Amino acid sequence: MSDILVQPVLRSPEIDAGRLLHRIRELARIGLDDSTGGITREGFSAADRRAQAYLMGQAREAGLAPAVDAAGNVLIRRSSSDGHSTDRPAILMGSHLDTVVNGGRLDGAYGVLAALEVLQACAEAGVESRYDLVAAAFANEEGALFPQPFWGSMALAGRLADLPREPLDHRGRPLRDALRAAGGDLDALGSAVWPHGSVAAYLELHIEQGPVLERAGHSIGIVEAITGRSLLTIQVRGSAGHSGTTPMEGRHDALAAAARVVLAAEEISRGQGLCRVATVGRVDPHPNTPNTIAGAVRMTVDLRDTDAGRLSAAERALRTALQRIASRTGTEIDVVADTRSAPVAADRRLRAAIAHSADELRLSHMPLPSGAGHDAQIVADIAPIAMIFVPSIGGLSHVPEEDTKPADLVGGAQVLLRTVLRAAATERI
Amino acid sequence: MSDILVQPVLRSPEIDAGRLLHRIRELARIGLDDSTGGITREGFSAADRRAQAYLMGQAREAGLAPAVDAAGNVLIRRSSSDGHSTDRPAILMGSHLDTVVNGGRLDGAYGVLAALEVLQACAEAGVESRYDLVAAAFANEEGALFPQPFWGSMALAGRLADLPREPLDHRGRPLRDALRAAGGDLDALGSAVWPHGSVAAYLELHIEQGPVLERAGHSIGIVEAITGRSLLTIQVRGSAGHSGTTPMEGRHDALAAAARVVLAAEEISRGQGLCRVATVGRVDPHPNTPNTIAGAVRMTVDLRDTDAGRLSAAERALRTALQRIASRTGTEIDVVADTRSAPVAADRRLRAAIAHSADELRLSHMPLPSGAGHDAQIVADIAPIAMIFVPSIGGLSHVPEEDTKPADLVGGAQVLLRTVLRAAATERI
Repeated sequence: MSDILVQPVLRSPEIDAGRLLHRIRELARIGLDDSTGGITREGFSAADRRAQAYLMGQAREAGLAPAVDAAGNVLIRRSSSDGHSTDRPAILMGSHLDTVVNGGRLDGAYGVLAALEVLQACAEAGVESRYDLVAAAFANEEGALFPQPFWGSMALAGRLADLPREPLDHRGRPLRDALRAAGGDLDALGSAVWPHGSVAAYLELHIEQGPVLERAGHSIGIVEAITGRSLLTIQVRGSAGHSGTTPMEGRHDALAAAARVVLAAEEISRGQGLCRVATVGRVDPHPNTPNTIAGAVRMTVDLRDTDAGRLSAAERALRTALQRIASRTGTEIDVVADTRSAPVAADRRLRAAIAHSADELRLSHMPLPSGAGHDAQIVADIAPIAMIFVPSIGGLSHVPEEDTKPADLVGGAQVLLRTVLRAAATERI
Repeated sequence: MSDILVQPVLRSPEIDAGRLLHRIRELARIGLDDSTGGITREGFSAADRRAQAYLMGQAREAGLAPAVDAAGNVLIRRSSSDGHSTDRPAILMGSHLDTVVNGGRLDGAYGVLAALEVLQACAEAGVESRYDLVAAAFANEEGALFPQPFWGSMALAGRLADLPREPLDHRGRPLRDALRAAGGDLDALGSAVWPHGSVAAYLELHIEQGPVLERAGHSIGIVEAITGRSLLTIQVRGSAGHSGTTPMEGRHDALAAAARVVLAAEEISRGQGLCRVATVGRVDPHPNTPNTIAGAVRMTVDLRDTDAGRLSAAERALRTALQRIASRTGTEIDVVADTRSAPVAADRRLRAAIAHSADELRLSHMPLPSGAGHDAQIVADIAPIAMIFVPSIGGLSHVPEEDTKPADLVGGAQVLLRTVLRAAATERI
């Protein structure tokens, strides 16, 4: 990336810290459960629509022109100082407004409001650039209600061209109706696709959702890669039996086998170092009663690494361990479902621009992987991407206690702004 | 026990095998789910009342006089050949008619119908004895709907004198109403108590519910003792976190700790031999989602042994293991509830009578523990008890496939009859 500005900025755009923090507080009231302090704005729920309306209202007040595409994404495009649209490539920035059930106020929302703040700051300063600047709020990133996470960014990247079936929520209600209520149109998803070349760069500002930055004492994290993930659903089949009348010898205890799977997954990461993290988060024994030996257990193993080869090796090691455990415990163990996402590397030059921006602001920074999934990994299909992280207090996320210091929130937005300006001034990003 | 009959039997009473098997088949239609083949007669449910009515109808047809006590127990007393009641001590025999959800046709029901058959055979043969013969169907042994297992036998033994609160079912509906519908009366439970001395002996015929007799190739099991049980409810507290963003180092994974508890329980029995069986049957992780490290797990450990000292030692070893696991995994592990039942030994002389009866019938027999709980362990408060087991095919119980060969069912009833006659002829049991 060259550092030569094509057109000089009229005056230097600045983040309005008070306005940003005020909007974060206001948005956090939408979907708030007063008893837990948690926020529930499942994608395409009524609360999610209120958040969408809040964002669009704030954009309009700022003199910007928000629109909703067929996938339910809110897109705010600033094409030039006079606000008229052109067909120039975009520097896209954003995240999502939807949350998990009883989640926090920053996951997604922070990145969207910071993108709006950057856009507004540029508009107020009369910044001209080679590229249109676009702030996006991607629809249904979490998939909390409708189990199609990354819905909005997948539509943008053209991954929803062939829906295998009518999407439904967990209770069987059609996405079609919920999408229409959010301003989208299931039959026009093709119109939401952005062609190759239309996005010059995608930048996503997000809370870390982990403890690394806080433990290291840095204000800014520069994502090197978004982790790949192998999520295996495992079925253990043993023999149910009475806990009192079935001797230990000859038991086929599915839960005793499942316990060994939990420890094998842990060993593959912590002990053998084959992948960065390995987690068994869900275990459903059957019949799950105190006085019955479990006849079956359904469980998940979540393996993550930013290196595709290491991730494959870890999965192979797990599958070998499953065979060994099945043989030793007299059970059958099968992987009945697997979903994989490949690691996605962040663009080297965008990462350098983030580092320069942080240096100028005297904000200490470090490279780190993103262990969580983000819309950026989907947008990577069609554009170079990068992500900026700010510290999560206590490493907490997806819980009501999820928080980041105000100074870090402002610092992250300032880094985003400077990085966007740097990219916007570059002939070839 | 002396073998001298006080009064000669007019003719030798015999089990009517066809009648017994026919009644087992008829009773198995009550509460049957045609799709699974399982039987659901939760104690004090409508299906349970229909089973009660069936039993009483069969008793009346046989010229016997069934009654329902205040606890909902069906009692069929044959006091003498003319059917008039006296105040003589009873030889009590029976079991229960209620089942678990989707259970089998023999658990409980077999012992009740065999007791009726023995009573009817004695009546038809005009057997006179020192003792009244009483067949009992104890109410709500399983506790499937109203979580007060052994309800009927506990009332009989006087254990329900001080109910701490109004008993409710799992949905909060009062036992009072369900008990009234079954012919009982919650306010008159005192009238259901049998005083010390009123029961000369209690005999319970039951399916083994385990694989021991089948594996050993014996037709009759003579219970040496009913196992004692320590059921511990364990709460593991760790820290929830994102499965992708939380490094392995510094995790406090409650499920990884729970897996070690499962293996520690297994080791205490199978490895160290401290108690006969140890089972983790229930594990409830929280939040139990694939991409979240479990912040908490609630689980049960079920320890059983027929020796009280060994059972205590096993529980101590488990508690020590819990401390070690908590320390190693950075979690807190607490035993938040414990229920214990002491082992109950079967009466030596009644066991000898069962053995003699089986020998006379040329039925091979072996001593074994009862790993499951039975009404007999409650009646042991007020009387000498013994239990006769017949083989369970495949060791299965509490499932639709629960079954026993017809010849074994008839053999068990024949042993019960001979044992009752032996006891009935004895001056001091």
